[in-house]
Amino acid sequence: MGEYYLGIDLGGTNLKVGCFNSELKQIAKTSTSTNANMGPGAVIDTIEQAVKNLLAENNLTLNDVISIGIGSPGPADISKGIVISAPNLPEFKNVPLRQLVSERFGKDVIFENDANAACWGEYVVGAGKGVKDMVFFTLGTGIGGGIISNGELVHGFNDNAAELGHMIIYPHGGRFCGCGQRGCVEAYASAASTARRATEAIQAGAPSSLKKVYKENGHISCKNVFDHAAQGDKFANEIIKTTAEALGVLCVNIIHITGPQRVVFAGGMIAAGDTLLQSIKKYFDYHIWPLKQENLEICFATLGEDAGIIGTAALAAHHSKKTE
Amino acid sequence: MGEYYLGIDLGGTNLKVGCFNSELKQIAKTSTSTNANMGPGAVIDTIEQAVKNLLAENNLTLNDVISIGIGSPGPADISKGIVISAPNLPEFKNVPLRQLVSERFGKDVIFENDANAACWGEYVVGAGKGVKDMVFFTLGTGIGGGIISNGELVHGFNDNAAELGHMIIYPHGGRFCGCGQRGCVEAYASAASTARRATEAIQAGAPSSLKKVYKENGHISCKNVFDHAAQGDKFANEIIKTTAEALGVLCVNIIHITGPQRVVFAGGMIAAGDTLLQSIKKYFDYHIWPLKQENLEICFATLGEDAGIIGTAALAAHHSKKTE
Repeated sequence: MGEYYLGIDLGGTNLKVGCFNSELKQIAKTSTSTNANMGPGAVIDTIEQAVKNLLAENNLTLNDVISIGIGSPGPADISKGIVISAPNLPEFKNVPLRQLVSERFGKDVIFENDANAACWGEYVVGAGKGVKDMVFFTLGTGIGGGIISNGELVHGFNDNAAELGHMIIYPHGGRFCGCGQRGCVEAYASAASTARRATEAIQAGAPSSLKKVYKENGHISCKNVFDHAAQGDKFANEIIKTTAEALGVLCVNIIHITGPQRVVFAGGMIAAGDTLLQSIKKYFDYHIWPLKQENLEICFATLGEDAGIIGTAALAAHHSKKTE
Repeated sequence: MGEYYLGIDLGGTNLKVGCFNSELKQIAKTSTSTNANMGPGAVIDTIEQAVKNLLAENNLTLNDVISIGIGSPGPADISKGIVISAPNLPEFKNVPLRQLVSERFGKDVIFENDANAACWGEYVVGAGKGVKDMVFFTLGTGIGGGIISNGELVHGFNDNAAELGHMIIYPHGGRFCGCGQRGCVEAYASAASTARRATEAIQAGAPSSLKKVYKENGHISCKNVFDHAAQGDKFANEIIKTTAEALGVLCVNIIHITGPQRVVFAGGMIAAGDTLLQSIKKYFDYHIWPLKQENLEICFATLGEDAGIIGTAALAAHHSKKTE
């Protein structure tokens, strides 16, 4: 009987595999190119090879493995383990990923979308540890996330839940979002939208030290905005205030809906550090009611890039325990 | 061994008690004055008398009762069954209502807040029947509600969830809400806010057939606004459009958060009928993304005033089954 769980984080570019013991302590991990363009068959082969290499390097075999978790970009049918489609996996259309991986290894496989898997990882061993109600936001190109309610992931009908960046907070005259809606949080506060708002304003002649960056590079990154803000550029600071205010309102709204004890922000943007965190908290305090004291804990994720492999392995362990 | 469940809906003015069989079919119900001003002891006496009368009139005794559900205004500590305070029950401060009722009858008692209880009633036998993910909104003086996720009520940390009317959708320059926040849905779309917006505009000289009502009565009700809109008053129709748009955006946001299959609106305002429902749906369609087809079912509640007694009895039955 095995005593380890494998967590597989399937990304469009990289495939990560981690091996964890029953206390979810990481034994080993590896990362390789996904070979996404070669289609599902090649991806399954890549997964098999990565898993076998990782086990062999650690003097383990598949017999030592209890079960496997896999996280994938979506949209997906989570209960059936099917990737319906995924912008980052262009060859994947209605691929029964859970079944394919399960057959390849002869193991139980639990399937989850990537954002929920990372959310579960933070919940079990990261920034969400110790709470039963948590909301997780990833600030990247878009804003995704996951919701934990009473210790379980919220999936919603047809796995429709937790498209958290598409909460509308400026329905009248707000910026258009990539999704086609108007005034989404994502249209203001994702890393890409933060960079885009800065770029547009610089193009329109806003006075800022970012002008030089734009002239040299032809574009402005989210990191540029935070760097110049830290150096005292007033314009860059205004851009970030708008980002933080949208995230603060998002926190107000989410506390009134699922009532989390803790909100965890993840993704590239949290590299901006305490300045961003304090600014989000300030806007939360500004917009939240005075009716009663709300002690929402707002913090940053702690697992970084490993959240996916830890989360999928932890889901495999959680599922094993539920079905014991 | 008993075979009936009792549902008790404790309101500031009226106390309702219903008796249901194990299929949740209503056997009998009664309503009496709560005597809220006389304090918790008198209220418990009132409950005891109402229950005993109802049972006796139907040739039943407490031996025929399996367990009891009770719903109360809040805020409350739901897991402990304590009413922390309640504007409509001014003498209630940290009253262990569940324990008091349980001791009085010698029965298991399940406790819930009134909005969640009504939500559960609609979910089990009303407009939410047949789905596992539902959101329920009550449109009254305020906007309350409840969330069902994967067949269970969402309570959140410290029972903080489902303050649904206080989702902010106009953070900049929005109307102030009674809660102190700016731009809440409730500040636009509750029955009281709809009436208030009309009254303020009439006071400011807006041209409308509602002017006459205001002169005669000194105020305008939500029903007046809907009646005059139905008679073709342009101003009244504009007021209602703003109500419906706020509710449409609320539906967009909730589908992106908990991902319900169905949204159920309840409360006095739904007497306005199909005009209101179609208008909410129109604004939902206007604000929702074109990214993928969303088939959110938006409908009105069907249980009316009985949702509370049915819901509390159904919660008692649900809890009995879970602990069997």
